[in-house]
Amino acid sequence: MTQDYQSLRKHFAQIAHFEHFSALGDWDQATMMPMGGSEGRSDAMATLAGHIHAMRTAPWLMDAIAAAADETLSLAEQANLREMKRQCLEATAVPQALVEAKTKAAYQCENAWRSQRKDNDWQGFKPNLEAVMALVREEAAHRAAATGLAPYDTLLDKFEPGMTAAKIESTFAQVRQFLPGLIQEVCSRQANEQQATIEGPFDIQAQEAIGREIMQILGFDFEQGRLDVSSHPFCGGVPGDVRLTTRYRDDDFTGALLGIIHETGHARYEQGLPLSLRGQPAGAARSMGVHESQSLFFEMQLGASQAFVELITPNINRHLKRDFSPAQLIHQATRVKPGLIRVDADEVTYPCHILLRFEAEKALVDGSLSVADLPDFWSAQMQQLLGINTDGDYRNGCMQDIHWTLGELGYFPSYTLGAMYAAQLRFAMEASLGPLDGLIANRQLEKVFAWLDTHIWSQGSLLETDALISAATGEPLNARFLERHLRQRYLGE
Amino acid sequence: MTQDYQSLRKHFAQIAHFEHFSALGDWDQATMMPMGGSEGRSDAMATLAGHIHAMRTAPWLMDAIAAAADETLSLAEQANLREMKRQCLEATAVPQALVEAKTKAAYQCENAWRSQRKDNDWQGFKPNLEAVMALVREEAAHRAAATGLAPYDTLLDKFEPGMTAAKIESTFAQVRQFLPGLIQEVCSRQANEQQATIEGPFDIQAQEAIGREIMQILGFDFEQGRLDVSSHPFCGGVPGDVRLTTRYRDDDFTGALLGIIHETGHARYEQGLPLSLRGQPAGAARSMGVHESQSLFFEMQLGASQAFVELITPNINRHLKRDFSPAQLIHQATRVKPGLIRVDADEVTYPCHILLRFEAEKALVDGSLSVADLPDFWSAQMQQLLGINTDGDYRNGCMQDIHWTLGELGYFPSYTLGAMYAAQLRFAMEASLGPLDGLIANRQLEKVFAWLDTHIWSQGSLLETDALISAATGEPLNARFLERHLRQRYLGE
Repeated sequence: MTQDYQSLRKHFAQIAHFEHFSALGDWDQATMMPMGGSEGRSDAMATLAGHIHAMRTAPWLMDAIAAAADETLSLAEQANLREMKRQCLEATAVPQALVEAKTKAAYQCENAWRSQRKDNDWQGFKPNLEAVMALVREEAAHRAAATGLAPYDTLLDKFEPGMTAAKIESTFAQVRQFLPGLIQEVCSRQANEQQATIEGPFDIQAQEAIGREIMQILGFDFEQGRLDVSSHPFCGGVPGDVRLTTRYRDDDFTGALLGIIHETGHARYEQGLPLSLRGQPAGAARSMGVHESQSLFFEMQLGASQAFVELITPNINRHLKRDFSPAQLIHQATRVKPGLIRVDADEVTYPCHILLRFEAEKALVDGSLSVADLPDFWSAQMQQLLGINTDGDYRNGCMQDIHWTLGELGYFPSYTLGAMYAAQLRFAMEASLGPLDGLIANRQLEKVFAWLDTHIWSQGSLLETDALISAATGEPLNARFLERHLRQRYLGE
Repeated sequence: MTQDYQSLRKHFAQIAHFEHFSALGDWDQATMMPMGGSEGRSDAMATLAGHIHAMRTAPWLMDAIAAAADETLSLAEQANLREMKRQCLEATAVPQALVEAKTKAAYQCENAWRSQRKDNDWQGFKPNLEAVMALVREEAAHRAAATGLAPYDTLLDKFEPGMTAAKIESTFAQVRQFLPGLIQEVCSRQANEQQATIEGPFDIQAQEAIGREIMQILGFDFEQGRLDVSSHPFCGGVPGDVRLTTRYRDDDFTGALLGIIHETGHARYEQGLPLSLRGQPAGAARSMGVHESQSLFFEMQLGASQAFVELITPNINRHLKRDFSPAQLIHQATRVKPGLIRVDADEVTYPCHILLRFEAEKALVDGSLSVADLPDFWSAQMQQLLGINTDGDYRNGCMQDIHWTLGELGYFPSYTLGAMYAAQLRFAMEASLGPLDGLIANRQLEKVFAWLDTHIWSQGSLLETDALISAATGEPLNARFLERHLRQRYLGE
C-alpha cells in the first residue's frame, strides 16, 4: 500500500494547480495587464500565495512524508518524496512573522531603491539595506537550525539544492585564477579586429518575425507556448504552456534576438520536463543553475557560435532587408569589454561580476562585511577583477541589482554555475555526437536537443544536481570546461 | 461590534481573490492560451472552482450570517449581508453529488452536441438532453425545498434574483400581443427602402482601430481594461481590469463594431461598480438582465441610433478609406428580417426567440413538455411568432443554442428583460436629460453615462432589481417602453 504517498501526491498536484494561477498572474501582469489592474491583482496574488504556503505547511504533511518513506515506492516516487520533504522544510523553517517582516522590509527597500539608485543616494539606501540584511541573517539562522546546514548554504539551497559555499569556492577559485588574464588577452586580440558597425533602425515586426523563425529552428513548440513582449524578459507559464518574453529596441536587434534564444533554452527545458511527473515536485526543473545552463547553452554554446550565426544570417537579412555577413554578426555577438554593469556584460567578463557578488554575499551573511563597508569592498574587487574603479559610483556599483533589495541572497552564483554547466554539457555532448558546429552546419540540431532531453530535460528533479551533472558528463561541476570554451571561442585555442 | 460581519466581509473578499483567477483563466483561455495548455488549465480551473465552492459552503457561514444580522449594520452592510446569504444558499441548496452528476451529463451533452448539431442528429441528441433535463428538474426540486420558491423560479433566481415566472409571464404576454403585428408592419415598410449594399473586404486592423476609437467615445478607460479577439465575444476580467473581446470578419464590419459597442456597455457597468464594495457580494453587478440592459443600452439605444451613427461615420470612413453615408450605415444596422437563429436576430424579432424559449423552459421543468415533444413545440411557436416553419430542421431549431446542453435553464429571459430595462431606462433618462439624439448630437454623452452611473452602475447590488429599476425609472419593469422604442425607431411613430 502507498496510501500516504498517494495522499501526498494528490496534495502536491493541488498545490501545482494553484501555482498554475500564480504563474498565469505573473505572466499576465508583465505582458497584458492594464495599470488599473495592479491593486486587484496584487491583493489576489497575496491571498493565493498565502493559500499555497498554508498547503505546503499543512500540519499533517511531515508525518505523512515520514510514513510514506516506509511504503514500497519506485525510484521516481522516492525522488518525489525527497523533493516534497525539501519543499515542506523550506516552507516551515522560517516563522511566519519573520517571513512577513522580511517581505515588508524588502518591499520598502526595493521601492525606495528605484529612485535612490537613479540619484546615486547611498546614504539613503544604506539603512534600508541594513534592515533587509539583518532579517536575511535571521532567516539564515532559522534555516540553519532546521537543516543543520551553514547559514549561507541554506540560502544557496533555496535556489541550488545541495550546493554549498565550499563547493562554489573551490570552483570559483579556478575562475578567479584564469579569468582576469584571459580577459586581457581577449581584449588586446579584439583591439585589432575591424568590422563595419551594424546600425539601425530595425523594424520591430521584422525582429519579431526573425525571433519566431529562430524559435522554430530551436524546436520551440508554439502549440505549447507563446512569445510576447515585457519590459524585463523572462520565461514563465507552466509546462504545456510555456510563455517567454523579450523586449525590442529599434536601434539594435541582437539584444532581443539573443534574449529570445536564451529564453527558448529555458522554455525547452520546461516543455521537456517529464509528463508522468507533471505537477509533482520531482517533475520540476532541477535548480536555478541547471535552468540557467539550458538558457546559456542555447544563447552561448549554440546562439553565439559561428555555425549557428551562419545558419540564421539569411533569416535576419530577409526580414530586415539588409545584407549582413555572418562575420559581422559574430563580431557583434562576441565583443568583449569590461564594464560596470552585470546585466550588460558579455560572456567573458560576466563571471567576474558573480565572483564579486558571491564573496560579498557570504561576508554579509556571516557578518564579516558590514553594509557600510560594501562600497569599498565592491570597488576593490572591481579593480582586481576587471580593472575598473567604482569609487563613489554607487548607482553603477553595489546599488545596481534588485536581488539584495528583495533579500534574495544566494541567487547570484546560479548565473555562473549555469555558464559552467552549459560548457561542461557541451563538451560531454561533443564527445558523444561530434563537434557542435558540425551538427549545426549539417542541420542536425534535433540530435543536440535529443541529447539535452535525455540527460537534463526528461530528468526533472529525479536526481540531485551533482548526480544529474555526473550522469550527463561523467564528473561533477568542473570549471575547466568554461575556460576551455572561452579560450576556444575567443582566443582560437 | 460587528465582528461576525467583519469576518464574513474578510471571507468574501478572499473568495473574490480566488474568483479573480477564475476570471483571468477564462479570459486567457479564450484569447491567449495555446492548445497545449488545455489540460493543465482545465485541471487547475476544476481545483479552483472546488476551492471557491468550499469557501461558499463553509459550515460556519450560515451561523455567522445569522449572528451578523443582529449587529448594528449600515444599509450597505445590510445589503451585503443579504447578498452573502443568497450566495451561500445558492451554493448549499444542491447536494454535491448532484452538482457533479449534472456537470458530467452537461459535459457529455455539450460535447456530443457540437457534432450532432452539424449533422442535424436529433435522435442522437435527444437522450443526452433528456439526461440533462432530468438532473435540472432534480436541481430545481432541491432549490425549491431550500428556498420555498417554485422550481422554475429557483432557476431564474440564479441569474435574475427575485424574478418569477409569473412576473415574466405578465410582461411577456404584452410583448406577445404587440410584437408579431409590429414585425409585419416593419417588414412591409422596409420592403420599399432602397440603399446601396455595403460590400467588403474590410481590413481587420482598420476595424480594430475604429472599435478602439468608438470605445473611447463611449468612455471606456483603457487603463482599466483591454480589447482582444476571441471566437465568442464576451466581457470578462474584473472591475479595475475589464477585458472585452470581439471577432472580425473581412466581409462585414458592422457585426464586430456593434459587438464592441455591446460589450463596452457590459464593461462600463463593471468599471463603474462601487469601489467601496469591490470584491463584496453587494458590490457586484445586480443580475444578468440588468447587465444585458447596459450592453443593449449601448448597442441599441445608443449604437443603432441615427445620431450616434452620424457621430461615428467619419471614424468608419477614415479607417476603411470609404465614403459611406450615415443613412447607408443606419439602414444596415436596422434591417429587420424574421429568421431561424436567435444570435443572428435583429432587435425587433429577437424577443420572439426568447418568448419561445421561456415557454419551453417552464414546461420542460414542470414536466408538461417532454424533450421528445420539443421539436413540434418549437415549430408551432416559430410559426405563430415569426411565421417560419422549422419542421425537421433541428439544427436551426431546438438544437441551435448551447444553454440547455449545459443545463442552464432560466438564463434566456435575461436577454429580453435586458432589452426591456434598456428601453425603460432610456425613456426615464430622456424625461430628465432631454432626447438622447440631442445629447449625442451635442457631444454630451458624458451626461448619459453619468445618469447610468448614478442610477445603475454605482448601485452594484445594494438594491434588489425591482427597487433598482423603480428608483431609476419610477416604476418596475414595464414592457410598453420596449414597444414605444421599437415603434419610434422602426415605424417613425
